[in-house]
Amino acid sequence: MRLSTRLAPVAALCAAVLFNSSHAAEDTAADAKMLRAIYTAALTNGPAYEHLRELTTKFPGRLAGSKNLAGAVQWGEAVLKATGADRTELQPAMVPHWERGAKESIAIAGGAKLTAVALGGSVPTPAGGLTAPLVELQSLDALKTTDVKGKIVFFNRPMNPEYINPGLSYGDAGDQRNQGPGEAAKYGAVGALVRSLTHAHDDVPHTGNTTYPPDGPKIPAAALSTIAADKLSAALKADATLQVSMQINSRWFEDAPSANVIGELRGSEHPEQIIVVGGHLDSWDIAPGAHDDGAGIVQSIEVMRLLKAVGYKPRHTFRVVLFTNEENGTRGATAYSTAAQEKKEQHLFALETDNGGFQPRGFNLGNPAGNAAKRAARWSALFEPYGIASFSDGVGGTDVHPLLAQGATVAGLTPDSQRYFDIHHTTEDSIDKVNPRELELGAAAMASLIYLVDQYGL
Amino acid sequence: MRLSTRLAPVAALCAAVLFNSSHAAEDTAADAKMLRAIYTAALTNGPAYEHLRELTTKFPGRLAGSKNLAGAVQWGEAVLKATGADRTELQPAMVPHWERGAKESIAIAGGAKLTAVALGGSVPTPAGGLTAPLVELQSLDALKTTDVKGKIVFFNRPMNPEYINPGLSYGDAGDQRNQGPGEAAKYGAVGALVRSLTHAHDDVPHTGNTTYPPDGPKIPAAALSTIAADKLSAALKADATLQVSMQINSRWFEDAPSANVIGELRGSEHPEQIIVVGGHLDSWDIAPGAHDDGAGIVQSIEVMRLLKAVGYKPRHTFRVVLFTNEENGTRGATAYSTAAQEKKEQHLFALETDNGGFQPRGFNLGNPAGNAAKRAARWSALFEPYGIASFSDGVGGTDVHPLLAQGATVAGLTPDSQRYFDIHHTTEDSIDKVNPRELELGAAAMASLIYLVDQYGL
Repeated sequence: MRLSTRLAPVAALCAAVLFNSSHAAEDTAADAKMLRAIYTAALTNGPAYEHLRELTTKFPGRLAGSKNLAGAVQWGEAVLKATGADRTELQPAMVPHWERGAKESIAIAGGAKLTAVALGGSVPTPAGGLTAPLVELQSLDALKTTDVKGKIVFFNRPMNPEYINPGLSYGDAGDQRNQGPGEAAKYGAVGALVRSLTHAHDDVPHTGNTTYPPDGPKIPAAALSTIAADKLSAALKADATLQVSMQINSRWFEDAPSANVIGELRGSEHPEQIIVVGGHLDSWDIAPGAHDDGAGIVQSIEVMRLLKAVGYKPRHTFRVVLFTNEENGTRGATAYSTAAQEKKEQHLFALETDNGGFQPRGFNLGNPAGNAAKRAARWSALFEPYGIASFSDGVGGTDVHPLLAQGATVAGLTPDSQRYFDIHHTTEDSIDKVNPRELELGAAAMASLIYLVDQYGL
Repeated sequence: MRLSTRLAPVAALCAAVLFNSSHAAEDTAADAKMLRAIYTAALTNGPAYEHLRELTTKFPGRLAGSKNLAGAVQWGEAVLKATGADRTELQPAMVPHWERGAKESIAIAGGAKLTAVALGGSVPTPAGGLTAPLVELQSLDALKTTDVKGKIVFFNRPMNPEYINPGLSYGDAGDQRNQGPGEAAKYGAVGALVRSLTHAHDDVPHTGNTTYPPDGPKIPAAALSTIAADKLSAALKADATLQVSMQINSRWFEDAPSANVIGELRGSEHPEQIIVVGGHLDSWDIAPGAHDDGAGIVQSIEVMRLLKAVGYKPRHTFRVVLFTNEENGTRGATAYSTAAQEKKEQHLFALETDNGGFQPRGFNLGNPAGNAAKRAARWSALFEPYGIASFSDGVGGTDVHPLLAQGATVAGLTPDSQRYFDIHHTTEDSIDKVNPRELELGAAAMASLIYLVDQYGL
């Protein structure tokens, strides 16, 4: 099925011809009726929100290696069984195991405490903590021209407010958290502080993964709330000799066993061909993980319920995958795509939901021929009554992306994004930030796309 | 300018011809640059959210006749002056003056209290309250076939969850609150309870206006939270003889003086032709009025700031109008349109924002020719980068609608609506439900449309 991208226009033509020969003609009236039935089933007492309440209250802080992630795996399989999966499976994956330990403490030496959380993967401070002078930088590049030896480096570049899509601002500022500490360590820094990656101006610190270059030195690293970052910056301006004390009590353990949770409806015509919908079960340790990605988990399960509720029998095998370890290792995604390759499974389509449970606006899509978004856009009129207006090019998401290399079309749900980074990777990513109807509308949009792809292909 | 709607296609053609003769040709590159400048000014430290904090904390519960509405009027004029209005004006309007009095109490007689609020405009219960048997109805029609004499009527039809737009569900269920008590009174009921108009299942009651037919009997009326409504319905099923006690302490006063607040930038080419943007200053007495309609107030002021921030000098007179008394009388809108007619003012365009400060999605538009939405849609590509994709037919909103009859094109901002009715007319309509970027994106969308209309007309 894979074609060189240089042949994309030809591929599109061929796909259209193949489509006409191998599938029924599209029946817009019947499809419109099916979508309406799916949306009605979702909006009338759909259980997604109650599932999310259960997941986030019973198993908050579902980080790889934690007891709560193990509990969530069991919970996920039970819910998929109760939803009517023909078959469930726990697909093993060994995952990284990092623990925060006792609460971290960051303070101006001899002065005010600063609201902060250790970054995921951070090494601990030496016993007794560390105290060192501070240097504030706006970029990793500045490391080349600044003496940071023996100092704590404070990356304080705010997310750029000018992007309309905060995801772009997040990507833009993310090097400070992802690579900043490791890079600063190369230049002799002894610790790193990072401004939280958020547009919100509040006292809530945002964690997230940091990675050190292999074989490079490792220094402890924490994120400050944006208010704490402003406070620290002002204090440093007032006193250039200011020192900061850091105490981080984290620890790395041996890899731990975990699993992807798979639930299936066997295809009635082509059981050997697979359509996937999924999100990730794990969350950061400090976070209830409601939007990231409890929402995606309960929406994926809800897609299965909706297909059954409207009496639809998939032609191809429909599979819900609750991926493990998206946040700090993506070992779940690797385990899934590796097994698919080994078993020579044929994945037609894989749809991810990991951008929050907000009002859905569209999908991003990618396929080897490079025409997936255009192909899906032919259904715009069907989706228009439901506020789904955007079909853009993309690679789905972290967990389904590897299937693209196996010839699958990958896709991701695109919800509104303005509120997402306000609570991303924080204690505040809780169920009260999720609107039950927005959550169900996302599930209904996905079930609708799955139905259309199952009927007509992409 | 007015044309019969039967001539709409011809009108569109004529408008296009007239446009070409009377305005500069549209310069898409320059316009795109202007929109980008407007959005950047909005997203980079725009003050709308801080204005909203001030309005909702200093002057919550801005109901017509209240001290807080009077305070908000003064505040609004001061902010418009500080924003750089060439001229401000307080346009007087006499407004209804209803007060809730001491907190209402609704309870199962001899049993549990029920979370409730009196409806706006409700008459009080007799001294000492009233206790009567209960009858539950699902519609006003059921009054014709049910004996409600001497009883308290309980309208308990939920909002229909199947509509995608909750505004339609609200309209659909709204007769219970708007006319239900007055209609029940005609049939001899002594009191009325109404299920709160919301999709949320919680213990927050929603007030809102109820109106009695002129010269008909009037009975006291309150809204129950959806949880209280379910509780009461279950209790009634268990005991058909159940009675309910109501105590409402409301009072009508003489009409009170209030004012619309007007702030203007004088047009550089056609000062006699007016473009309006506005929202309403008043709110329900129990509500901080953040989304309804504090958001619209600060967005309207922000439109003026944005035009000035990007150095744009309007060709026509640009007017911000902070309308008074939208919630229970619309005397502000009447005063404004009456004055416009008396002064023979020529209104080209009037844009309202009264649907909450959520992520903006588009505009509804109406004009005498019936082609305003289509005309505005020619700017779709300019708005596309900002998520503004919908240009639909409509009548703007309650406050600008009267100007349509004077030949103006009217419009309303259309934001996401899923969360709006969760907090509408409640104590929970507070600033923490508003996202600063979504609020500014709405203001930027409006400023962009105002710029385009000012440049090219509709």
